Amino acid sequence: MKRIESPKNARVKQWKKLLTKKGRDETGLFLLEGFHLVEEAIKSNAPLVELIVDERTAIPPGWDASVPVVIVTEAVMKTISSTETPQGIAAVCRKLPAELEGVKTALLIDAVQDPGNLGTMIRTADAAGIDAVILGEGCADLYNPKVVRATQGSLFHLPVVNGDLAQWIARFKEQGIPVYGTALEKAVDYRTVPLSSSFALLVGNEGSGIRPELLGLTTENVYIPIYGQAESLNVAVAAGILLYSLQAVR
Amino acid sequence: MKRIESPKNARVKQWKKLLTKKGRDETGLFLLEGFHLVEEAIKSNAPLVELIVDERTAIPPGWDASVPVVIVTEAVMKTISSTETPQGIAAVCRKLPAELEGVKTALLIDAVQDPGNLGTMIRTADAAGIDAVILGEGCADLYNPKVVRATQGSLFHLPVVNGDLAQWIARFKEQGIPVYGTALEKAVDYRTVPLSSSFALLVGNEGSGIRPELLGLTTENVYIPIYGQAESLNVAVAAGILLYSLQAVR
Repeated sequence: MKRIESPKNARVKQWKKLLTKKGRDETGLFLLEGFHLVEEAIKSNAPLVELIVDERTAIPPGWDASVPVVIVTEAVMKTISSTETPQGIAAVCRKLPAELEGVKTALLIDAVQDPGNLGTMIRTADAAGIDAVILGEGCADLYNPKVVRATQGSLFHLPVVNGDLAQWIARFKEQGIPVYGTALEKAVDYRTVPLSSSFALLVGNEGSGIRPELLGLTTENVYIPIYGQAESLNVAVAAGILLYSLQAVR
Repeated sequence: MKRIESPKNARVKQWKKLLTKKGRDETGLFLLEGFHLVEEAIKSNAPLVELIVDERTAIPPGWDASVPVVIVTEAVMKTISSTETPQGIAAVCRKLPAELEGVKTALLIDAVQDPGNLGTMIRTADAAGIDAVILGEGCADLYNPKVVRATQGSLFHLPVVNGDLAQWIARFKEQGIPVYGTALEKAVDYRTVPLSSSFALLVGNEGSGIRPELLGLTTENVYIPIYGQAESLNVAVAAGILLYSLQAVR
């Protein structure tokens, strides 16, 4: 088993590059951190390249022994960690393949930049049993460590792809799948929309909402009534309310 | 108008103390940052003590001129800011009084420690028209700058108080107001609960949920079905789904 002591080791420098989008795009790899995420990756047969384990940390019994393990010092783990208190376990994973055949329900996300919001929406789509998540232009990078963490492993559970939202909206509509945007004007109360087992929901940027050229392409736009004095809901909360409300009860 | 140039000024040191819970508790004051929050405070007649304005920043016309203004340098603003790119405007505010008479709907929060989640839930409760939010033991401090920011100003719109949740649950039940906890076991699908114009919702810690001694006190416990492989929903998303679903449609 390989052991790396120095944060200046060349391998450590390569891992560190995976903390940047450029480094991830050049290598096609990303970093995972913590027991829960690495375990979700193993359970989901994600394309893990190697486990990185703090020398003081025990690998839980039952974890797949076929993935190479690199033992590192606390100093090395701190260098590659993007959390304040690293759990002592990380992994390098290949970016995930995504299969989008037969998608009947989807969450389309336009320019959501906050990593926590983006990751939370992927987690919510997973929980709601949605088939796929499609990230349009201007979204945070799926493999940003903060996004990965906020998904709580859901990025291993359903396909999440980057795509042209205008094309996807057109494709869903061609297949007879209604696409609902979220908007404050020219929109209907979400509770008036017929429940369906196939639909796509489009949500947008935290500040500016969905860009108008996309809003004009949807089947219908919906709003969530505000009864108090808040100006709006957090986008991840709104997505949760809508994903759970628009689906026909199973 | 007073002008402060040095980050080492005694006044600046007092402001900086408001970034800690100890400092806020000792003084009964807290800091607000950014145009939106300060404007919400002014619109809501919050007990503002002073505005702190970067010398390069213009105070928007129409803002209440009765609050004293202190002009500061960029260096001073950076010292007291808890954001990476300060907007050039901040304010000192007295902790908010809270009136809890005649509350018919409430969100009860047990030990939610993430400031973003806590603030987002206060914002969601505001949007849903809930009458009050009650923070139990172990919650992040309401006046933590990250909580204040995540509320997007909703802390000025509805009463948010610290309280003993067991006592509050008892009080609501005495008044005939049902209290719903969220739990994975011994709970019913949230869609089976009768809609009501008065209810209290109890949500719990991100990792461990509501503590068992509180769960046993509720009228009924509910769960949100998970259709995919996610283990759970983010607590703020779950609160949003439930607050919007449990209320009788207006």
